[in-house]
Amino acid sequence: MSVEPRETINAERLNRHIEELAQIGRIGETGVCRLALSKKDRAGVEQVRNWMEEAGMRTRIDPFGNLIGEFRGRNPELPVLMLGSHVDSQPYGGRYDGALGVLGAIETVQTMKEKQFTPDMNIEVVAFCDEEGCRFNKGLFGVRGMTGKLEEGELDRKDKNGVTRREALLEFGCDPAAFDRYTFEAGRIGAFLELHIEQGPVLESLDAPVGIVSGISGPLWWTVELNGFAGHAGSVPMPMRRDALVGAAKVIVALDELVRLQEGTSTVGTVGSLTVFPDSRNIIPEKVTFTVDLRDIVLSRRNELELQLLDTIQDICDEHTLQYLIREDTNSEPRYCADWMKDIVRKEAAAMGLAAPELMSGPFHDSLTMSYVCDYSMIFVRCKEGISHNPKEYSSPEDITLGAELLYRTAHRIASGATNGRRSDE
Amino acid sequence: MSVEPRETINAERLNRHIEELAQIGRIGETGVCRLALSKKDRAGVEQVRNWMEEAGMRTRIDPFGNLIGEFRGRNPELPVLMLGSHVDSQPYGGRYDGALGVLGAIETVQTMKEKQFTPDMNIEVVAFCDEEGCRFNKGLFGVRGMTGKLEEGELDRKDKNGVTRREALLEFGCDPAAFDRYTFEAGRIGAFLELHIEQGPVLESLDAPVGIVSGISGPLWWTVELNGFAGHAGSVPMPMRRDALVGAAKVIVALDELVRLQEGTSTVGTVGSLTVFPDSRNIIPEKVTFTVDLRDIVLSRRNELELQLLDTIQDICDEHTLQYLIREDTNSEPRYCADWMKDIVRKEAAAMGLAAPELMSGPFHDSLTMSYVCDYSMIFVRCKEGISHNPKEYSSPEDITLGAELLYRTAHRIASGATNGRRSDE
Repeated sequence: MSVEPRETINAERLNRHIEELAQIGRIGETGVCRLALSKKDRAGVEQVRNWMEEAGMRTRIDPFGNLIGEFRGRNPELPVLMLGSHVDSQPYGGRYDGALGVLGAIETVQTMKEKQFTPDMNIEVVAFCDEEGCRFNKGLFGVRGMTGKLEEGELDRKDKNGVTRREALLEFGCDPAAFDRYTFEAGRIGAFLELHIEQGPVLESLDAPVGIVSGISGPLWWTVELNGFAGHAGSVPMPMRRDALVGAAKVIVALDELVRLQEGTSTVGTVGSLTVFPDSRNIIPEKVTFTVDLRDIVLSRRNELELQLLDTIQDICDEHTLQYLIREDTNSEPRYCADWMKDIVRKEAAAMGLAAPELMSGPFHDSLTMSYVCDYSMIFVRCKEGISHNPKEYSSPEDITLGAELLYRTAHRIASGATNGRRSDE
Repeated sequence: MSVEPRETINAERLNRHIEELAQIGRIGETGVCRLALSKKDRAGVEQVRNWMEEAGMRTRIDPFGNLIGEFRGRNPELPVLMLGSHVDSQPYGGRYDGALGVLGAIETVQTMKEKQFTPDMNIEVVAFCDEEGCRFNKGLFGVRGMTGKLEEGELDRKDKNGVTRREALLEFGCDPAAFDRYTFEAGRIGAFLELHIEQGPVLESLDAPVGIVSGISGPLWWTVELNGFAGHAGSVPMPMRRDALVGAAKVIVALDELVRLQEGTSTVGTVGSLTVFPDSRNIIPEKVTFTVDLRDIVLSRRNELELQLLDTIQDICDEHTLQYLIREDTNSEPRYCADWMKDIVRKEAAAMGLAAPELMSGPFHDSLTMSYVCDYSMIFVRCKEGISHNPKEYSSPEDITLGAELLYRTAHRIASGATNGRRSDE
């Protein structure tokens, strides 16, 4: 008597691929460094391309460095179902961030091929170029290139060795001159589906191996500068002080309290970076510069908090006779996953016996850019202690298998009897 | 009819000496750089030595680099009345810090000589070596040397060019080998009197040209480290966070509030330096290191505040699940000025028609070390906006004249009919 495996996909193969890809640019036991457009990144892309071809896909690398594998469907005129993520990594990164979404998508297609399933529409698996953005300090490059959203001067951005992105692309084997001839064909892609590790601790805390993403919350990013007046820490009486660090501390506490008042919501607020001038133990701080990161899946709530924080900063500066300057670095709106796709993911998870909780994604993903050109959905896989962008990043083979199985079943369902990316029975 | 000047001292000469000394190591219009034991410092000392000799003093430079001018009294067996300060400066300093105390003391002696006044005891004017401590990162060198308070390894301390203090002293013309033969004779000095700019804004706020120092408040210096747990700023829900910067901000606010509760006292508390790790705008701070500087002229009050702050840190760390580590870097006790000397200063100020308020000194001075070997007193001169250790440091010639006149009158009184440094009629 043989025991049938619970999952349709080949879990052993998928986890072996993750292990093998992690050897390219490996650091230490579990870490990975495959900086975008580097030799290691290229080697990773080549390995992934081989697996795409083994899985029955026709592959190409577009001018933006995106690796695309095409699995032909019954009706190639239908909008494409796209699956994928990225294989570039942080300089001191882990083996799952990005890689899981690409290798899970390849496993999905390979399983379809082995099951002799032909999708309605073409399925394309993409390994997007330079999602991380750490080399040229601006990410989501490949997906923005593919969807026609690059900005002025992106090719001239330099890495810390002075290499431009143009040079790096040429070295990678791409032709930036082809950018001008490229246009994104609106409507070509019907839906995008991305599998990713959570990069947060929510699923672990809920004891759930997988989760359904409600949307990617747009961050509001500020740089705040508070200006007071320096003086000897021993000789300026408290009532005469204009201490910029006391002011900044009050803002940090106020932000934390404002956000915590939004109980039971996904609102988060963070001051991650702060510098003090002149930063001497016996001089009263004259200038403090710090960042504010405010995210919410509900934009109106985030906007309300922004106004409250502004009022608070004004009050604190009045109280301590400080001047403030706020620079808005980023102001992204939340991007919601498509209900019809979430419904499919939810039903398929239920069929697998999984209670997949819904949660927002704080971090960006390639999906964020895709959300502007098609419907999208994301499946999260639990990761240990929420650790990511770190060699300690870890998701268990069991959770990875469940996540990829859910990806497979969702893609299979979308590709079975669908019209224009939407299921025909809806 | 001739108008008699209000003051006994020669104000024109004193202010000219300040102006002339400021030309040595001058930076910009008003700044000074005479780093301890540098060529500029040596040139300054030579200039000051000439003025000491013009004023009738016999001069010598001791092995520690202190320039000492002796003005013989009627009874050289009596404990010495010492006057002085220092002429070394901060790298980006002003022309008054230290210089005023030395040049005011020379003016005092020169006026005595011109008035044919012979003091009871010898008067010594000292320009102490390396009060500032910025070159070898440890100050009060000369005064500690003279009073037998040097520590192990001080001669081996290096400046940022790798020059040791031993080498610098030899270059300066001193013989560190003589340290071993030197012993401080306890009781040799009866009283020390130092004139100095306030380096704070109190006198200016009280509209008073001069002030009487109550004592030098000893600082308590801590380095505090708070340890939490890093995580993605977008993905870790607020209740699960262990944000070290939120904890640090609460400590900074609490310290400020605790100290401000001591209304009407001289208590001051400052966090002047703070660093965040990993200091990235979208990562929750894992570790924050910051300094605490707590000063009070009343030690029991400072000790009470220290305990309250410790409790507060414990509570904040409990609330945010942080670990803390506190390193005590310095724990100095306040050193009070001698009542009998303050009384003389007060009476002489009153005779000049000045309401000289009493205030503590937050900063250190050579007096701090002297306080361990003899009675001491300090006279402060108002300075603009409390600015010091900066080329913008400024005291008006009028205020300087009043301060030096008060120094002269106080020294004259102490040196007239005194026994063992104390006035015989007390």
